[in-house]
Amino acid sequence: MFHYAKWIPGVAVGLVLAAFAVLPGASAGQMAATGHATAESLEHMSANPDDWVIPSGNYDSWRYSKLDQINAGNASHLQVAWTFSTGILRGHEGQPLVIGNVMYLVGPFPNTVYALDLNDHERILWQYTPRQNPAVIPVMCCDTVNRGVAYGDGKIILHQADNTLVALDAKTGKVDWSTEVASYKIGATGTGAPLIVGDKVIVGVSGGEFGVQGFLAAYSLSDGHLIWKAYSEGPDKEILLDPKTTTDLGKPVGPDSSLKTWKGDEWKIGGGDTWGWLSYDPKLNLIYYGSGNPSTWNPDQRPGDNKWSMTIFARNPDTGVAKWVYQMTPHDQWDYDGVNEMILADLTVNGHKVPTLVHFDRNGLAYVLNRANGELIAVHKYDPDVNWTTGVDMNPSSPNYGRPSVVAQFAPGSHGVNVNYKGVCPAALGSKDEQPAAFDPRTGLFYVPTNHVCMDYEPYPVAYTAGQPYVGATLSMFPGPGGYMGRFIAFDPLTGKTVWQIKDQFSDWGGALATAGDVVFYGTLKGYLRAVDAKTGKVLYDFKTPSGIIGNVMTYMHDGRQYIAVLSGVGGWAGIGLAAGLTDPHAGLGAVGGYAALKDYTALGGQLTVFALPAS
Amino acid sequence: MFHYAKWIPGVAVGLVLAAFAVLPGASAGQMAATGHATAESLEHMSANPDDWVIPSGNYDSWRYSKLDQINAGNASHLQVAWTFSTGILRGHEGQPLVIGNVMYLVGPFPNTVYALDLNDHERILWQYTPRQNPAVIPVMCCDTVNRGVAYGDGKIILHQADNTLVALDAKTGKVDWSTEVASYKIGATGTGAPLIVGDKVIVGVSGGEFGVQGFLAAYSLSDGHLIWKAYSEGPDKEILLDPKTTTDLGKPVGPDSSLKTWKGDEWKIGGGDTWGWLSYDPKLNLIYYGSGNPSTWNPDQRPGDNKWSMTIFARNPDTGVAKWVYQMTPHDQWDYDGVNEMILADLTVNGHKVPTLVHFDRNGLAYVLNRANGELIAVHKYDPDVNWTTGVDMNPSSPNYGRPSVVAQFAPGSHGVNVNYKGVCPAALGSKDEQPAAFDPRTGLFYVPTNHVCMDYEPYPVAYTAGQPYVGATLSMFPGPGGYMGRFIAFDPLTGKTVWQIKDQFSDWGGALATAGDVVFYGTLKGYLRAVDAKTGKVLYDFKTPSGIIGNVMTYMHDGRQYIAVLSGVGGWAGIGLAAGLTDPHAGLGAVGGYAALKDYTALGGQLTVFALPAS
Repeated sequence: MFHYAKWIPGVAVGLVLAAFAVLPGASAGQMAATGHATAESLEHMSANPDDWVIPSGNYDSWRYSKLDQINAGNASHLQVAWTFSTGILRGHEGQPLVIGNVMYLVGPFPNTVYALDLNDHERILWQYTPRQNPAVIPVMCCDTVNRGVAYGDGKIILHQADNTLVALDAKTGKVDWSTEVASYKIGATGTGAPLIVGDKVIVGVSGGEFGVQGFLAAYSLSDGHLIWKAYSEGPDKEILLDPKTTTDLGKPVGPDSSLKTWKGDEWKIGGGDTWGWLSYDPKLNLIYYGSGNPSTWNPDQRPGDNKWSMTIFARNPDTGVAKWVYQMTPHDQWDYDGVNEMILADLTVNGHKVPTLVHFDRNGLAYVLNRANGELIAVHKYDPDVNWTTGVDMNPSSPNYGRPSVVAQFAPGSHGVNVNYKGVCPAALGSKDEQPAAFDPRTGLFYVPTNHVCMDYEPYPVAYTAGQPYVGATLSMFPGPGGYMGRFIAFDPLTGKTVWQIKDQFSDWGGALATAGDVVFYGTLKGYLRAVDAKTGKVLYDFKTPSGIIGNVMTYMHDGRQYIAVLSGVGGWAGIGLAAGLTDPHAGLGAVGGYAALKDYTALGGQLTVFALPAS
Repeated sequence: MFHYAKWIPGVAVGLVLAAFAVLPGASAGQMAATGHATAESLEHMSANPDDWVIPSGNYDSWRYSKLDQINAGNASHLQVAWTFSTGILRGHEGQPLVIGNVMYLVGPFPNTVYALDLNDHERILWQYTPRQNPAVIPVMCCDTVNRGVAYGDGKIILHQADNTLVALDAKTGKVDWSTEVASYKIGATGTGAPLIVGDKVIVGVSGGEFGVQGFLAAYSLSDGHLIWKAYSEGPDKEILLDPKTTTDLGKPVGPDSSLKTWKGDEWKIGGGDTWGWLSYDPKLNLIYYGSGNPSTWNPDQRPGDNKWSMTIFARNPDTGVAKWVYQMTPHDQWDYDGVNEMILADLTVNGHKVPTLVHFDRNGLAYVLNRANGELIAVHKYDPDVNWTTGVDMNPSSPNYGRPSVVAQFAPGSHGVNVNYKGVCPAALGSKDEQPAAFDPRTGLFYVPTNHVCMDYEPYPVAYTAGQPYVGATLSMFPGPGGYMGRFIAFDPLTGKTVWQIKDQFSDWGGALATAGDVVFYGTLKGYLRAVDAKTGKVLYDFKTPSGIIGNVMTYMHDGRQYIAVLSGVGGWAGIGLAAGLTDPHAGLGAVGGYAALKDYTALGGQLTVFALPAS
């Protein structure tokens, strides 16, 4: 056994050993029996469609609701029921939670959290605004976003921009505990929504553009102490990979699986950050998430596969040890972070129900894996204009099994640095970024808000300075073939078939919601909330909210009425030009160029807009 | 003739003399014939109910629309048609303009102006954000508000916070000309909506809490040069009062009418600022407005009537010379600025149609005057709980004719300074502040958003320092009798009868709109937009906009559909606690105390919400 305890800062050795002690022989069933009261409770609570208790809707990250009061027949009659301003400008990613009669929501920096009383005209029951040093703002690469608070055991968990993790009493907003996840002074920031699993708060970290060594960490929900911390790259004992039992496409990863793929100590500033969404399978007792880009963006400075950046991890939430890993984009040359949501869907594969994980990666490929063992089932481009790869080698006996075959022309660095690689598709922000897809379990279809954006990318050497940008590339982004930048698609990841699509002038950077009413919802960067017929893609309702939407649509039922809610507030990477007031088309990681025209359609502002059918 | 020219800074003598030269013998008709193309055009344009071309709806400041598609029978079916975020936090007073297919609106500091294309999904045709020194923010007494842009001759006129007056090309947003009205460095700021009369832009100035000597000024619409400037107090030649022809309640004011009422040079820092609304009677060729509080708030430092603070002025727009004046609150002891809107209504008085001016003053009295000659017709309390006065002496032969009789107990300073005068009603922000009333010419009724707030007021000596607050009083404001702070009333100013009222927890600080559909509209500090039956006061529709409303409701017709629009964005004096993040209950001119609970209902944010009936 490894002595995991000694490299976990601030944690009592005994605690960690105790947690690890149950690992080797423990089955999922055994794990579920030990202290999973809250997990079971959240699983149970998330089955009630009146509420929205987990940021992604359920542990499976479906963003699907059984509510069907609003359906394809009446969605055109939707109207705005009420609205709420957050008092904060810049990008509003994320979504509210609804638990009983209270809605909880959070805005970008300074991360004010609101609790609204749905029983009393949405009165503000409490609000909590952390004191944070504004010095955190310039180290947030892609706007000052926050993707939502989590709920568990009567607490609201907030991962602040400055990487403070805080537990608030859900009834009063009073601070129960708080702890520092990492230091924003080295560029490590908090943007993701935590996930509560059992008695643990699971959080990742942002900072891939500042060379922050990414990790996932588990804290005690009851008192905030660190339970485990699993880095994305480094020695086995730091990344919590067991050389014998952790597998990669069915085979044990072996010793030093990460260290072997880095030059010298580059892994220490190697990125692989973990700012995306988290999923959990209670039966398998595994949490799923992806790691981001290896740092720097100049691939020349980090020869090798740079494991385990760009990797899907399946980890035991009790110990943090990985059951399996799969690296999607070895030796990233594009900034195709692998952090997008992992949707846990039991799909029928060759006539058999399989516990799959479906993932729409930034790199433009939709992956289907068996989430029990990490076996690769299907990989398809979900945007036909993806050109950096011809696809993934699906031959299990090939030495390149599971690797994408790279087209050198569109692979920055392949012909050296200080070379401008033109017309690479997708752009760095990917065919899809953090904007989450929705899954309809009745049809097996996925509703995916996507980017249709390409780029010119020029890598250059860069020196690392703690807390300073460590990017090493200039890029310019522009609309993909056809001249548009967004597509909202209904997609079958097993066949790679796009069932229907809606093209948009700008990226569709707002997350989707699927419902049993056969209506899917999403928001556009221009600020439109759309209700779409799930079967045909016909737009049933189209409403101009106050500001561009990069938030995720959710739904809840209150007093017998179904509501649809979404945060407006243009920003995020796609809207960084507006959010940060940038005018240089190459500023903001190259995002401004293609999105510069956004200023002709919308202005900053954070608001919740809530829709319903007319009261009868 | 006075040599007016020599004391008008920055103006060529010849120009001013030329302007003045036509004064003495010119009739209104003659004036109208000389260069009033734009005035006639605006008067004509404002008669088209599809547009909203003058901030107050028309020159008469009626805020009444002939549109009746939305009526008392269908207003309950209103729904939100579209929304727009201004990208600015803090208080959004004012209202949009609609001219043809374009809507123009402006937010508080930094005063971004937007032109929205109503023909193209409200796309932003252009936006203009002035560069202003943020040092202006702390010298804005009552939030960083702006009450709207004006339109004339293809130009949008913006009076910036920093007192720059700028003309923008209405088609492109390009700056045509700009000029400095006064220096914000002495605390003189711009918050009011300009009024275009003929070829002139008429503007006032804010700064009563900084000892700024108030004035009204006229600039050339074509090139921005100063045409005349009329101070509120000082020598006759500075205040443009003609001792012989300017009258006060029918009698010539005589020489030195202002100087005689001040001790020494106190008038030079004597306030009387002019930040309120402006009206215009094209037939009489007179503009109407009021002056604000004399500085300092400590009355002990300025013995005398402090003329012409707290005064209604009727001035010739071509020369600036006053036809008549009437001081409502001599020797102010409460900060009851006289700047509220002057509504020009032809009411039937004793069986005769009279050209009246109706004014709901901060001091709690509703005044009706003959606007042709300044004759006093009726004065009534419009809040029965007003206690500082028992009323105005209406006996023309009395030496106190036209003066309010003051109740010493509720008149701070009457028993000396450093004394706390308790329970004074209304509070300093008045029974009504700048939030404009609406007038229905069909019924003769006025719809008035009011404050029902009282105060404890303690005056103390204060020294003047340029650019520093010159307040000289501490106060604490709290709900009036009954425990509520706002009333929206239908009022007859000739009889003093309140036809109906709606009580609100907080002040009703949003301006009203009356319509031919027998529906009146207003917004509440909690953020509700209300449609009310004009005859009964029944609330027909009640919608929660994103933030508290201090904006004024307006209406327009586009493509055959009537729209109702209002700016949300809590702030202003009533919302200064939220807007400026104040927590001290005595901060913000004492406003926070009674309004502290506002934070439980709404948060900052500037948004336009536009309503319509469902598309059939």
